[in-house]
Amino acid sequence: MKKNIIVGQSGGPTAVINSSLAGVFQTAMDRGANVCYGMLNGVQGLLEERYVDLSEHIETHLDIELLKRTPSSFLGSCRYKLPKFEDDAAPYIKIFEILNKLEIGYFFYIGGNDSMDTIAKLYKYSKTINSDIKFIGIPKTIDNDLNATDHTPGYGSAAKYIASITKEVIRDGHVYDSKQVTILEIMGRNAGWLTAASALAKSEDCEGVDMIFLPEMVFDIDKFVKKVSELQKNKKSVVVAVSEGIKIADGRYVSELTENVQFVDAFGHKTLNGTARYLANKLAEKIGCKTRAIEFSTLQRCASHIVSRVDITEAYQVGGAGVKCAFDGESGKMVTLIRTSDDPYQCVTGLFDIADVANLEKTVPKEWIINDGTYLSEEFIRYAKPLIQAELTPIMVDGVPRHLFLKKL
Amino acid sequence: MKKNIIVGQSGGPTAVINSSLAGVFQTAMDRGANVCYGMLNGVQGLLEERYVDLSEHIETHLDIELLKRTPSSFLGSCRYKLPKFEDDAAPYIKIFEILNKLEIGYFFYIGGNDSMDTIAKLYKYSKTINSDIKFIGIPKTIDNDLNATDHTPGYGSAAKYIASITKEVIRDGHVYDSKQVTILEIMGRNAGWLTAASALAKSEDCEGVDMIFLPEMVFDIDKFVKKVSELQKNKKSVVVAVSEGIKIADGRYVSELTENVQFVDAFGHKTLNGTARYLANKLAEKIGCKTRAIEFSTLQRCASHIVSRVDITEAYQVGGAGVKCAFDGESGKMVTLIRTSDDPYQCVTGLFDIADVANLEKTVPKEWIINDGTYLSEEFIRYAKPLIQAELTPIMVDGVPRHLFLKKL
Repeated sequence: MKKNIIVGQSGGPTAVINSSLAGVFQTAMDRGANVCYGMLNGVQGLLEERYVDLSEHIETHLDIELLKRTPSSFLGSCRYKLPKFEDDAAPYIKIFEILNKLEIGYFFYIGGNDSMDTIAKLYKYSKTINSDIKFIGIPKTIDNDLNATDHTPGYGSAAKYIASITKEVIRDGHVYDSKQVTILEIMGRNAGWLTAASALAKSEDCEGVDMIFLPEMVFDIDKFVKKVSELQKNKKSVVVAVSEGIKIADGRYVSELTENVQFVDAFGHKTLNGTARYLANKLAEKIGCKTRAIEFSTLQRCASHIVSRVDITEAYQVGGAGVKCAFDGESGKMVTLIRTSDDPYQCVTGLFDIADVANLEKTVPKEWIINDGTYLSEEFIRYAKPLIQAELTPIMVDGVPRHLFLKKL
Repeated sequence: MKKNIIVGQSGGPTAVINSSLAGVFQTAMDRGANVCYGMLNGVQGLLEERYVDLSEHIETHLDIELLKRTPSSFLGSCRYKLPKFEDDAAPYIKIFEILNKLEIGYFFYIGGNDSMDTIAKLYKYSKTINSDIKFIGIPKTIDNDLNATDHTPGYGSAAKYIASITKEVIRDGHVYDSKQVTILEIMGRNAGWLTAASALAKSEDCEGVDMIFLPEMVFDIDKFVKKVSELQKNKKSVVVAVSEGIKIADGRYVSELTENVQFVDAFGHKTLNGTARYLANKLAEKIGCKTRAIEFSTLQRCASHIVSRVDITEAYQVGGAGVKCAFDGESGKMVTLIRTSDDPYQCVTGLFDIADVANLEKTVPKEWIINDGTYLSEEFIRYAKPLIQAELTPIMVDGVPRHLFLKKL
């Protein structure tokens, strides 16, 4: 336990990703870690020997509280994909050289599917060279698509943001006494968890969205137009939530039917957007009604001004649990959340073999998607509602939320 | 003072428009009004005799608190344009018939420029028929484009929302160690007040946006591309705020250069959107960098989950001041806010002849637009910063903000 620790963040951020960083840092320091390094821009930055001593940046209890409430990855992130070491060992050799130089005993990586792939590879390589560095993955992703864990830290806050603003937009839809269709475009490439969260807008004081379309189901444009027409017979303001990742029968994304510039990232992902606009234009053309397209956009991953306290607390906990298990000798594991009760909601942390986590996406169970693929069942509500409960008030300074920033030392 | 009052809401809502309604209702009841009617969907609904007795919907102190925090116009809104009574007196005759039947002595209309036009016309007509009904306009608009008032209720909360999420998005822009340009599209057809509010994101912990383009200045696409290229030499993440209403030299909106469906409302306004996307695509094409286009969209007018306490309090005050002055015998006036001090910030309410308010748009003073039309001066910051101060916590129930809704009686 004399050795130093290093922690990095990878992939797209969440509103609470820095709460996990706070959990790793605070727990490591409390449990007697020597130096707690933070790699800048994940393993990509580590390969360039870019890192900081976190205690120079997180000095007070207020810093911890600000860090928890700071959106975007505090240490920066990357989408770097490690080659298989069997194909190219060079980056592995470099990384372990740096880790050994820094006397690292424990390596924590906060990320989603792709990041767990990185941890799995580093762990596997560490075994081949008999390194005793412990590798632990800390889950985060707004997408909630990691298997082995009941849910991922980050999802609850994104879901709370989506539910809250969907409720506000539904209200706004009633402002005029005229027919209107609002299409909400919500993130989620292959897993519809975020889009499903729009179902949480429904409450005693809100009718909820009228239809929800997830990428788990094939999307039929003609059927969609017909369903909207039918809904319009009985109500003036129709609000529909669609995932950016919905696909038509031939496998193309709806967003591919538009003329947007496509961008492919290091993991081969296409940039998806314009789905709502495309469908809104299609409706305007086919049924001639007034339409609005609203992309919830990047705010889904960075709206720290409204987070779920359940989520931000669990994000901290998985960070802490990661440190505890690593210090206890575990390696090659991802920390998980295991739900022990729905009502009252209770979750404990667990561990899962990282090799079994990586690159397997967890999607919304088909049996939770009801009404001919247009709504979510009570099972989903029971699953998701506990995750958006309670708030953690932002620390407001001069009218805007205050964040912690990396000092220029 | 025996007569009844009626209040309506018109035009696009703000996050605090219902706080003005609460101010009208509470003050009228406190000052001994008999019945307080609410017209549904403004004068358009009134013409169809659609109205409610507000005391059947606002019964408790908690209802008042929920109403203040409820987004979208509680009573519904309209974009109905009254003809000149010299051209067509029919709607005027109908309206006064209904008002007389309901024994209305005081008529309040919460709205922006177009709504003040309605009040001015009704007042003018009332003089020709020697009606003693008092007509008072209560200002609201996120656009802040009403003259005669220091600012409009609704602007402060929209500005706070814009400043807060801009700050979050700027942070998010730094997550990857790669070049990226983010274009924020902010509301404002002819007046750049909302877009200017993005300047308020700049603070000790945030570098702020890099450029801001308002509709007050002619927009030059080539110059824009050049300026972004220059900025990219020194920093990786460039964030630019543009108004949806920016126009090129020949007078066309940038959004008109896209292929979006155009919608023209009753007041002859074009629907503007796609500005950010157009510019992002232009940058991708010209300088080949990664771009993101983010439309802040409808949330600018309905994000009640983050409001300015200064704003929501003033929104209530102008409602109350309207009732007080009407009960004192005033008519044909709009309530205004008069700033008496910047630091400490202090505002009092005043009155202004409605005929001089209507249809004159207040834009951002050109001398406040600096750096070759790409930023806002300290004068703007001094003007706007007091308006976004302090918060009014949403009342959260089951994880989402609670609103008041019109009961089905």
